Amino acid sequence: MNKKVSLKDIAQRVGVSTTLVSYVLNNQKENRIRKDVAQKIRDVAQELNYRTNQIAKSLKTKKTFTLGLIVADIANPFSSSLARIIEDEADRHNYTVIFGSSDENPQKSRKLIDTLLKRQVDGLIIAPPDGAASQIADLQRHHVPFVLIDRYFPDLKTSYVALDNCAAVYAAVDHLIDRGYRRIGLVTLQSSLYHMNERKRGYLAALKDRNLTFHKHWLKEISPDILKPEIERATDDLLAGPQPVEALLFTNNTVALHGLKYLQSLRLRIPDDLAIVCFDETDALDLFYTPITHIRQPLREIGQQATRILLETIDKTNKITQVNLQAELVVRESTSQMVSKLVHGR
Amino acid sequence: MNKKVSLKDIAQRVGVSTTLVSYVLNNQKENRIRKDVAQKIRDVAQELNYRTNQIAKSLKTKKTFTLGLIVADIANPFSSSLARIIEDEADRHNYTVIFGSSDENPQKSRKLIDTLLKRQVDGLIIAPPDGAASQIADLQRHHVPFVLIDRYFPDLKTSYVALDNCAAVYAAVDHLIDRGYRRIGLVTLQSSLYHMNERKRGYLAALKDRNLTFHKHWLKEISPDILKPEIERATDDLLAGPQPVEALLFTNNTVALHGLKYLQSLRLRIPDDLAIVCFDETDALDLFYTPITHIRQPLREIGQQATRILLETIDKTNKITQVNLQAELVVRESTSQMVSKLVHGR
Repeated sequence: MNKKVSLKDIAQRVGVSTTLVSYVLNNQKENRIRKDVAQKIRDVAQELNYRTNQIAKSLKTKKTFTLGLIVADIANPFSSSLARIIEDEADRHNYTVIFGSSDENPQKSRKLIDTLLKRQVDGLIIAPPDGAASQIADLQRHHVPFVLIDRYFPDLKTSYVALDNCAAVYAAVDHLIDRGYRRIGLVTLQSSLYHMNERKRGYLAALKDRNLTFHKHWLKEISPDILKPEIERATDDLLAGPQPVEALLFTNNTVALHGLKYLQSLRLRIPDDLAIVCFDETDALDLFYTPITHIRQPLREIGQQATRILLETIDKTNKITQVNLQAELVVRESTSQMVSKLVHGR
Repeated sequence: MNKKVSLKDIAQRVGVSTTLVSYVLNNQKENRIRKDVAQKIRDVAQELNYRTNQIAKSLKTKKTFTLGLIVADIANPFSSSLARIIEDEADRHNYTVIFGSSDENPQKSRKLIDTLLKRQVDGLIIAPPDGAASQIADLQRHHVPFVLIDRYFPDLKTSYVALDNCAAVYAAVDHLIDRGYRRIGLVTLQSSLYHMNERKRGYLAALKDRNLTFHKHWLKEISPDILKPEIERATDDLLAGPQPVEALLFTNNTVALHGLKYLQSLRLRIPDDLAIVCFDETDALDLFYTPITHIRQPLREIGQQATRILLETIDKTNKITQVNLQAELVVRESTSQMVSKLVHGR
């Protein structure tokens, strides 16, 4: 790869002035530049690897004692709690953290990575969105110190701290079966992210290992964009017909929140009418009238380990550390032993 | 004020080398420098206004299309929802936001301001902690574009977007009185922050205007550091004795969350045993078995206006815009008309 791509190279290739290229790549005077020209400039810049050269350049400067953090969505309590833990851990090592959220959007995540590296952070902690694998590979190629959290790409050999998501859901489904439930539904997000697939895999594996026939309509994969109506429709479906599900597992905190709100509005009795397991621990769960069995992620450990690994990586960039942590199943009343409806089982 | 303070000036004044001063002010080689010497260097730097000169210097550079945001505590849903709104609004103007939380600590807030300005953000949106007035005055003196949100200092003439907190609580207490409640308690945080004092002032003013005698033990100011046990003790106190309170107002979302959890554990019936009003709207409220009357802050408007004002300020630094927004009282079942206990009133 050519390591000396300049604005001039891009300008010559596109056939425009260097100034115009500079405007486009620095997002200036947008309204006064033709869209197709701007796009062409961006395409050539990407093709010539201009951005990543910039990134590499920024690394030559000395330490700033600042870490960059990219979370999926800062308004989600999982992200914001983790951000807070990382801030506290970094502070203990005299580092300041600046962060932003990718909003599950690979364009935004690329822009944030650029912004943070131009602002000369010493390293990055990233919860990468779907479609960001090439950005992560770029960082690695340019020896940018980074650690992935929550999500990772199994095909890329990078440092990460993540949960064993498959085992977490497996244990929860296994527990439901132990408690007498046989018709178990899963409400999850449509996603090609590895960690969400792992949750689905855990569900299917547990049913299989306990010799329960899986019915396709028990698994509801809903679009994150229209979460509320889709969760309500999925729940209605799962509870309809002659053989409604006896237990339901929500695979993340937003799905759980909307699901529980809807169950509350239906005046369903938990666990008598329906047993519930939620993924993630949030304050909201504590206000539900029945204490909810949930899968607790070791948030503090995830945040602290990611920070420590990043600080190590800043000193020795070649070291790769991969950590898979185990979740804890916190059993509460929402999954009490099933008695009355056992006759319907299997 | 001398605008040309250098590392050398500080070194001469303390009687150490310029290199040593540089290490201390850049937080390097901490373990190898005597603590009293490091402190002396920091004191002299502060006395000579070294930091603020650095800040002024960083402003000479060109636009980076990056905004800095300092929230009180990113793990609090008020902060994180606001951060998300500001990110979205900034993105609409092609700006990226990087942020951090001050943890209600003026030292951390100073460090973050330094970090963000050194990282060359074009301007700052700040929810300042208690004790940060001098930092804000410094920013103003050096013509750093900034807007305060949520909190402000009435003695400083700065741009801000904030809630009319006094009116918000006044309206809630007025509503409780309209609904027949007379013995009304307030659980709030110990704080000298203006916005928290305004909430207390609204409570007292409403009682006075409706000719209700205020009893000192109805007002509980608890320490943020030991929130949970203090809220439980305060609630016990308010409900004890021959004349327990009939209604309770929690003045922010964390106080409300812990308060509701405790009331749930006591198996109190809301509103039959106790009427409840909460400040702030959070997802958690929706899972409580009785829908809760609450004070809704116009979060979207706060975030969007702050962002727009900041972007204006970046272009014309002399303009000061102060916005006081009104809250909305969302009336739900937790403050239904009081009937049974009206005999105890006044």
